[in-house]
Parts: sequence; structure tokens; C-alpha cells
Amino acid sequence: MEIIEDGSDALLVMNRHTYLVKVKKGARFHTHRGFIELENLMGMPFGSWFTSNTGERFVVMRPSLKDYVSKFSRRTQIIYPKDSAVILLWSDVHPGSKVLEAGIGSGGLTVYLAAMVADTGKVYGYDINPESLETTKKNLERVGLLNRVELRLGDVTHVTQEEAVDAVVFDLPSPWLAVKVAKNWLKSDGFFVSFSPTIDQIEKTVIELRLSGFVCIEAFEVMQRYYKVAEGATRPEGFPHTGYMVSARNSIE
Amino acid sequence: MEIIEDGSDALLVMNRHTYLVKVKKGARFHTHRGFIELENLMGMPFGSWFTSNTGERFVVMRPSLKDYVSKFSRRTQIIYPKDSAVILLWSDVHPGSKVLEAGIGSGGLTVYLAAMVADTGKVYGYDINPESLETTKKNLERVGLLNRVELRLGDVTHVTQEEAVDAVVFDLPSPWLAVKVAKNWLKSDGFFVSFSPTIDQIEKTVIELRLSGFVCIEAFEVMQRYYKVAEGATRPEGFPHTGYMVSARNSIE
Amino acid sequence: MEIIEDGSDALLVMNRHTYLVKVKKGARFHTHRGFIELENLMGMPFGSWFTSNTGERFVVMRPSLKDYVSKFSRRTQIIYPKDSAVILLWSDVHPGSKVLEAGIGSGGLTVYLAAMVADTGKVYGYDINPESLETTKKNLERVGLLNRVELRLGDVTHVTQEEAVDAVVFDLPSPWLAVKVAKNWLKSDGFFVSFSPTIDQIEKTVIELRLSGFVCIEAFEVMQRYYKVAEGATRPEGFPHTGYMVSARNSIE
Amino acid sequence: MEIIEDGSDALLVMNRHTYLVKVKKGARFHTHRGFIELENLMGMPFGSWFTSNTGERFVVMRPSLKDYVSKFSRRTQIIYPKDSAVILLWSDVHPGSKVLEAGIGSGGLTVYLAAMVADTGKVYGYDINPESLETTKKNLERVGLLNRVELRLGDVTHVTQEEAVDAVVFDLPSPWLAVKVAKNWLKSDGFFVSFSPTIDQIEKTVIELRLSGFVCIEAFEVMQRYYKVAEGATRPEGFPHTGYMVSARNSIE
Repeated sequence: MEIIEDGSDALLVMNRHTYLVKVKKGARFHTHRGFIELENLMGMPFGSWFTSNTGERFVVMRPSLKDYVSKFSRRTQIIYPKDSAVILLWSDVHPGSKVLEAGIGSGGLTVYLAAMVADTGKVYGYDINPESLETTKKNLERVGLLNRVELRLGDVTHVTQEEAVDAVVFDLPSPWLAVKVAKNWLKSDGFFVSFSPTIDQIEKTVIELRLSGFVCIEAFEVMQRYYKVAEGATRPEGFPHTGYMVSARNSIE
Repeated sequence: MEIIEDGSDALLVMNRHTYLVKVKKGARFHTHRGFIELENLMGMPFGSWFTSNTGERFVVMRPSLKDYVSKFSRRTQIIYPKDSAVILLWSDVHPGSKVLEAGIGSGGLTVYLAAMVADTGKVYGYDINPESLETTKKNLERVGLLNRVELRLGDVTHVTQEEAVDAVVFDLPSPWLAVKVAKNWLKSDGFFVSFSPTIDQIEKTVIELRLSGFVCIEAFEVMQRYYKVAEGATRPEGFPHTGYMVSARNSIE
Repeated sequence: MEIIEDGSDALLVMNRHTYLVKVKKGARFHTHRGFIELENLMGMPFGSWFTSNTGERFVVMRPSLKDYVSKFSRRTQIIYPKDSAVILLWSDVHPGSKVLEAGIGSGGLTVYLAAMVADTGKVYGYDINPESLETTKKNLERVGLLNRVELRLGDVTHVTQEEAVDAVVFDLPSPWLAVKVAKNWLKSDGFFVSFSPTIDQIEKTVIELRLSGFVCIEAFEVMQRYYKVAEGATRPEGFPHTGYMVSARNSIE
Repeated sequence: MEIIEDGSDALLVMNRHTYLVKVKKGARFHTHRGFIELENLMGMPFGSWFTSNTGERFVVMRPSLKDYVSKFSRRTQIIYPKDSAVILLWSDVHPGSKVLEAGIGSGGLTVYLAAMVADTGKVYGYDINPESLETTKKNLERVGLLNRVELRLGDVTHVTQEEAVDAVVFDLPSPWLAVKVAKNWLKSDGFFVSFSPTIDQIEKTVIELRLSGFVCIEAFEVMQRYYKVAEGATRPEGFPHTGYMVSARNSIE
């Protein structure tokens, strides 16, 4: 059992509401159902229940990476966990991997990539927007993974290669324009994954990949349909579209 | 650039066909389009093209974990990569995690769990079928991850706990019967994920989780819709159902 | 070209807003973008554009049956047009058909059934709620189809058969309890269709149908995914779940 | 109860197999499970069970329109019933409607349109392929609806208008090229529906409709997901993609 300490991050869960807090002496946290003295959590194991001053019951969890990402400050539409999950598997990122990510937005995917590459790997994160870099930096610091990421301002299509990477991951408005960059940066059999909201972007990207000698090209979307469970009355809840993906692998002639 | 060596695993790719081979001196590999002398691949970088004796062009890749899993010998329906990807993220498995997996089948998910927990973690893999253990053992050896997994024959619902785990992952016919086991093995805020082909299994499992003090309960399915891309003529290809998932977290009173 | 006359029903369309009005002398209609003098529409062909007093452009359409249904006063969740469409085809309702409908709600499906059976057919519409009958009556009058429908208050499972029907269509909380009624009322090879929000209702209904000698049993759901079209940027919009269906045919021993 | 007579069409149902036959004196029908003397069916009510010479049990049904269409001889991919159902509702076709259909293929949709317009309506069916006309003619004769359809050989985009129609329904490779024709043939507020296998066709068609003064434009796809029902083990079966639709209404300046 892990014990809540002074300085611990904690996720307070009450029904469908969750709050990400830092436990500290003297800190009082206000929810929509009363406040709690965070200091009183110290010494309790994660997973414990407690009550707010108004008698509402909460449970306190060690935040998962997914919890952190759901609480990130964000400037733009964040990539959903279901999409991040598939991107990680399809790009074969693992401890030690070098990854080029372009279009980092608020860092929702960057955090997962940084967690995967471990201390022996590296993520190069590009964005043309200085505020995206600022937001992502803050979010990476929050989860203690900033040291694995090099954040760089600029249009990735204009950048000169430095070292070969194992994978590129793009969330760009015109990913087909960045296929050349991917070709230059990727190892000779490196992984390409691109995420886009429209079929047209997917189509253009696939065509460019074919022309550039990429192989194992796949195009798909990932959908997640939630269910509301009740005994004898379980029924689906809507499932929103988030985006399409292209995956491929480099080859050399 | 990584170079193909004597003893390297390699994925041969020709259009939609792929072959997983071990490169060795003197080995000849027969495909449906002629044979190749694997020895001739040595010294080439992964990602290179070459031709079979009949003139067919192949490209040779370093196998990804997903490639290995797709080539696993299997006794049962394997969990699809899209589902494995989401299970990994939802169970928050990371380097150092201890995981209990029950219903390992052919080890299709075990391999991903083992890769995630790294050398500091551990997977306890249960199955009631001795042949499943045998197949999984062989598959884990193939990818060099057997040392991270303890394979155990038996019904997980009858097993006494040894050490607290961070996550349990079930692919069982009656997962609701194993909720008590999960409760006993899990850390006080540990992660529960279960995979099932029917809504009824999901419903029963969710109800049992609620009775057992689990929180943050979600039920969903993950669908992956593939697209056939052609300029101005991109169209969907069918997407099969694979299964539903339940995720939850433990809590203590 | 059909001309708008005194007394014509008309659908006013402005971008995504639509209004169902009756054109009359002296009537002024207020929208969120100014008002219009309906009298001025007389003599114009349907499909014409005109402007409100604030200069907003509208187009005026003869309402389709789908337009009427979308404007119905309603007490309950109405069956979506996509589901009504499939129910009509699967129940093989056609001019002259006799149909038993139970659980008419606000008459959203009743209207389509009445339109299909024509003047030579008949719909028997049951509901246990007097307000449902009242609302449905008003809605049927609005579209001039009340004469084809016999509205009856009561629990259809307690009703004695009068004449054999070609099809039964159910939107009931426990449709499996009404399978016996369907059996009694249906012609010897008549059509059974039931609409339900949960899988569990579907499962129970299918099992009861099998026990009661029904054949050609199908269970399915119909989903409609809308797309937002823009040049090179077409993307899906969410698609909500509405319900599941069971269809079957009677047989006799 | 309708009685099977000499000359009746009948659908023989055995588990998942169905056969469309014409009952006649002296006719013997061979199935994969023995033969039956069709003459013996005369005098039985539809919905009755009987046995083949090998003891297999069949049930005999009056064919629905959907049954006929499923047995049509076909030259091309037929429009699925779920799509036909939605096309009928969205085009507001009803008794007395005049409809222009272009790209009739094997007449799978034509039959439904002909059934809907009744004896007071008319369907103008175009196809550039003489064999399509031949197949469709045969299929319409089979269901007794040929008198409501005028079949015409030729490219609909080159045809001069004759009389205004209430609706146009297209299944054409380049439906956007036929928007002008639709505009010319349609009543001033007439209905446009087009069916296409790719998003790109949808996008081009919507853009052309906007330029041509069409309103109420919708783009969507209809999916039908089948379920295999078993007590406590109901699970989805795959759902294939069939196509996308555009619907719209004409307007005049």
C-alpha cells in the first residue's frame, strides 16, 4: 500500500467528478460539495475514502498518467487516450526510442511518448506556436517527464536532421508536406504515424507515403463506444469521432 | 541504421504478405514467390529491398512487437492490438509495475504487459489450460521477455495472494467470479481491466465491481475501422467486433 | 410547380432552423430573425425564397412526412426516422396492410405506418397512457391520416384479437411479454418487429420468439453517422445510439 | 390466412437457407436437403411447416418485397435494404410520386420506388448499360411492378426533361455531374438523394448542390450492426460499409 504524504499528487473522486490536487500542510481544497483539509489525507493509503466538511464521501487515488492528461491545461483539442494508446503501439515506441513529434499541441500525447521512451530515450517535440510549447512544458513538468523531451519552436518541415529517430508522430494540418522530413529523420525501417481529423488529409498522406517509398501503410480510425451499465438495461452512450490515422514504415532503395 | 546480422530476427514484407524469419548462415527461406538465401541479408540495413530468386521484390524490417504478436503460434482467439493498446493505457502499467493476468490464452497480451513492466516489474500469468502456458512460454521466449513473466497453471479464483499488484487484467469466461481475487491481490487503489466478448459479461462484472467497492468504473468497446485509400476513392473496409472492456479502480473502506 | 395557397402547410427554412407554419390571410409569423407576413407567400411556388422584415432570407418548402414528424408535439423520445425507415421495410407494410402497433408514444412511427397502409389499410394503435393517445391523435390530424388509425387505450397484452393483422410493431418496455399477443393477432406468416433501447430486451424477446415458433429472426441496430462537408475537410459528426430491433415472422404448426 | 395456390410465389425457409419458388402442379424443387413436391403445398396457409423427402423441416412464406430483392438476379452490387429504406423516407416518395432514378443497376432500389409510387405514380429508370435494363426489367416483372417503371437506356446527363419529378435518386459514379439534370427535372422544392461508396463523391456532390441552390443538404451513412443472440451471450456480428448518402431539396430564385 502506498501512503499519501506531504507533497503527494492525489486524485479526488466523487461520483463523476474528479479533482487533481497536491497534498500539502495547511492546504484546504474546495469542491462543489464542500471543502476538505488536504493535510488530513497524509498517512492514509491511496484508495481510502474520506468525507468533506459537508459530509460528502470522496475516494483519493494516486493519479494515473491518463488522469494527469485529462487534467492538463490545454490550448487545443487534445488527442484522446484511445488514440494515444493506439499510436504508442503502432509506432512501436519503447524504452530507449528516439521519437520526433510534430504538432504537440498541449502535450497530451507527448507525455505518453516520454513515459514510454524512459530515461534512455528522447522525444523531440516541435510546434509552430510558442504558447503550445509553454503549455506542454508546464504539463510535462507536472508529471516529471520534462527531462526526456526537447521542445523546439518551429515548422518541422524546415528543420535539418540531427540524429536518426525510430519513429515520427505527426498531428499536423498538412501531414503530407512533412513526409519528406519523416523520410530524412527516420531510421531506414523507422515508424511513421500521423493523426488527422479528416479523410482527405489521410488520403493525401497515404499517397505521398507511397511515392516516398514507405511500406506497410495502413489507414484507420479508432472508435470507443461507452456503455451505461444497469442490470438488464445496459445501453450504449454516443461515441464521438476524434480522428483518422495513417501508419507506415520507412524503407531504403 | 541498424544492420542485419547473423541471428537477427527479420520481417520480410511483400505487398500484403509478411514472413518472420531468423537470419542464419546457410538458411534458405521459401515464400509463395520464390526463395531467398537469408545469409545474403547480412550486412544490409533494416529497411532494405532485395529480390527473391524469381525476381520478386521484398523489404526486410526489424520486427515490431506487434509484428511478433501477429506471428505468434496461437491456440485461441488472440486479443487484437487495438484492444491491447487500450488495456495498457487504462491499466496504467509502467516500468516496475506488478501485474496479475488471468486467462493468458496464447500470450498475445502478456507480451505487451511484459514489455511495459520492464526488468523491474513482473507479470503473473494464470491459465487453467496447460497448453496455453506452453504456447505462451514459447511466444515469450521468441521475443526475449520470458524472464519478466511467472506462468502458473490453475484457476485464479482459487489462488492465495502473494504480493500486492498494481493491476489485474482478465480475459476470463466469468470475470465477475474473479472480482474477489482482484480485490485481494490489488493495491488499495489498484487498476482492474477485464476483456469479454459479450455485453452480458460486462454487465455482470460491473455489478460485482460496484458491490465490491470498486470506483471509476467504465464499460466500453474499442472499434477500429480500416480504410482502403485511393485518390478520390477512399472507402471504409469492414470493422469486426472483438470485445467489450470494463475498467475500474480498487478502494478501501 | 405547386403553388402556396391559403391554408397550405409550409416549412420555412433558414440555415439550420426550420419552422412549420400554416399559411393564412392576416397571419404574421415571428422567427428568431424577424417576422414575415404569411399572406405574402400565397401564389408563390414551393421552393421559393423570400425575406423577413429584417432582411433575412428564407426558403419555403412543402413539408415532407419527415418534416412533420420532426415538428410533432411529443411526450416521449420519438423513434428516429432512420429507425422508422427500417421498420417499414422490415415489416413489409404496404397499401392495404393491417398493422397492430403497441407503444405508440407520440405517434412518430404511427404516421409512417398510416401513410404506408393507404386508405385500404388500417393501423391499430395501443398505448397504456391516455396522454399518448391524445398527442398521437393531434399529430395524426395534423397530417390528415387519423382516418387510417384506430387509437385504443390499454395494455395490448390483455386485449382479445379481432382480426388478423399482417404485421405487429412494438415499442414496449417488455416486448417479450407481448409475443403471445403477436402470435394471436398475426396472420400465419405475419411480420413481427420490435424496437428497444437495450440489448437485454432484445435478448429476452428473441428467446421468447424462438419458443413461440417464430422464424427468420434477426436482431440488429441501425446507426446513422452524419458528416460535415467542406472541400478537402469533410469529417464525421457523432452518431448517437437510438435502439435495437428484432424482426421475425410467424409460422404455424 | 392466405392459402398457397397454384401459381403462388413462395419462400421456402430452412434455418439460414431460403429459396424463392413458384408453386405449380407437377413441379419438384431440389434443395441441399432433399426435394419437395411443390404441388403438395397447395391448400396450406402461408406460414405452414412441411418436410422434404429426406425429412428436413421447412416453413413456407409469402415473399416480402425484401425477400424478392434478396433473390434478384443481379449484375452489380445491389443497394442494401437498410439503404433503400432510408432513401425512401428521405426522398419522401409516396403514392402518386414521379421519380427519376439514374444508375438502376439490377433494380434493387427501383422495385421499392415502384412499390411506393403506386399505380398513380411513375418511376423513370435510366442506365447506360443495356444489360442493366434487361436485368431490371426481368426483376420488375417478377414482382409485378414493371407497369410503373419506364426503363430508358442512356446517360441521364444528356437527357432532355419531359415532366417535372418529385424526387431524383442517383447511384452514379459522378453524381455531381448530374446535379444540373436534377435541377432541371425536379419540381421547385423537389427531393434529391444520391448514394455513393466514397466520401469524395459525397463531398463533390454536396459542393455542387450548394452552388446550384439546393438547400437542406445532409450527408451521412447508414450502418446496420447485426447481433447473434444467445441467452447471456449475445454478441455483435460485423457490420460492413455499403455507402454514403447525400440528401437535399431544390429551391428556385
